[in-house]
Amino acid sequence: MTPTITVFADSPDRGQGLARDMRVRWALEEVGQPYDVRRQSFAELGRPEHLARSPFGQIPTYEAGALALFESGAIVLHIATQYEGLLPAEPDARARAQMWLFAALDTIEPPIVELFIARVIEGDKPWAAERVALVKDRARHRLGQLAARLGERDWLDGDFSAGDLMMVTVLMRAQPSGLLAEFSSLADYVVRGQARPAFARAFAAQRAIWESLQAAG
Amino acid sequence: MTPTITVFADSPDRGQGLARDMRVRWALEEVGQPYDVRRQSFAELGRPEHLARSPFGQIPTYEAGALALFESGAIVLHIATQYEGLLPAEPDARARAQMWLFAALDTIEPPIVELFIARVIEGDKPWAAERVALVKDRARHRLGQLAARLGERDWLDGDFSAGDLMMVTVLMRAQPSGLLAEFSSLADYVVRGQARPAFARAFAAQRAIWESLQAAG
Repeated sequence: MTPTITVFADSPDRGQGLARDMRVRWALEEVGQPYDVRRQSFAELGRPEHLARSPFGQIPTYEAGALALFESGAIVLHIATQYEGLLPAEPDARARAQMWLFAALDTIEPPIVELFIARVIEGDKPWAAERVALVKDRARHRLGQLAARLGERDWLDGDFSAGDLMMVTVLMRAQPSGLLAEFSSLADYVVRGQARPAFARAFAAQRAIWESLQAAG
Repeated sequence: MTPTITVFADSPDRGQGLARDMRVRWALEEVGQPYDVRRQSFAELGRPEHLARSPFGQIPTYEAGALALFESGAIVLHIATQYEGLLPAEPDARARAQMWLFAALDTIEPPIVELFIARVIEGDKPWAAERVALVKDRARHRLGQLAARLGERDWLDGDFSAGDLMMVTVLMRAQPSGLLAEFSSLADYVVRGQARPAFARAFAAQRAIWESLQAAG
């Protein structure tokens, strides 16, 4: 059965692939599973029909048969468990690949999102400049530790996995602030992820929504 | 084989069970798996030996045979996958239980941690009071959505699962700010979790470390 995912009808990132549907689209492309898309406006995200699917009013969601999921991490892990191609078969290597998915979401993404909040959401506050510097240092500390662990490797642990997929999408969110560019090995790692054909297909699919909105004026 | 976990030698929460080893201890107690503990001082967390286990210098870690994991979410998921008792057998229910583990870590915990940062880490900044109110509202919004979804249920989806275990430990971190007390159904949910014998054993074990430090003067 073809799964359906929900995405922004009008993504605030203007088609840069920074919204969290990108990680789910990419995972589905990596495993070769076609999917349908339901676009949701910001108004629709707050309505009972969407909140029944996604109690926190977020995208993406994932529906396949009787199963309905929210949380991009859970969805990517589910896809990686259901289909071949995103997790190693050997049990210990599989646990480590899943560990990197959690590390992306729980250790690397929070300071990157916090930096976005400081720069953009609280960008008009009197404390913005001082706080952006503070939060940027926290995020910089984490990226430095990540770069130290990655070292000269192509991927975080063995072959490309769901952990790399999540880490690359999270690091992409450190591009607009200029932070990612401070870590050339991490920037290269992101480029390696983006060079995968499955990434390109997923990126084009989300970009097409923004381009159709531009064309419609 | 008996796994070994790392914990704070001197937990900053003074034995309140708010450090992230608590969720791993609780999971091990729920499945009936004994474990060994390695205490790490703050100085030790930054040393090469610990960074080899935990590249971000955090606790907890988990070692069993050749497998070494960091990230509390990954460790709890691994325990729940290896042993019976924390995930339903039916595949869709299992995916939903895992989803709540991600929701706890990725949607509920970030604003709670952010509130801690605003209150404590940045508590001496000139913007502290104004920002605490702002961040508290964001966390309040999420807890309200969670309370709406929980409704009259005992647990988030069917029987107690790893998702509930993680959510309860995350919500405990909203107690010191007074935020949890604003949501009586969530406070009751935390009490239900804490009433489980496995929670009590895990709590006592981490508490004993703090008490031994007090006794040693």
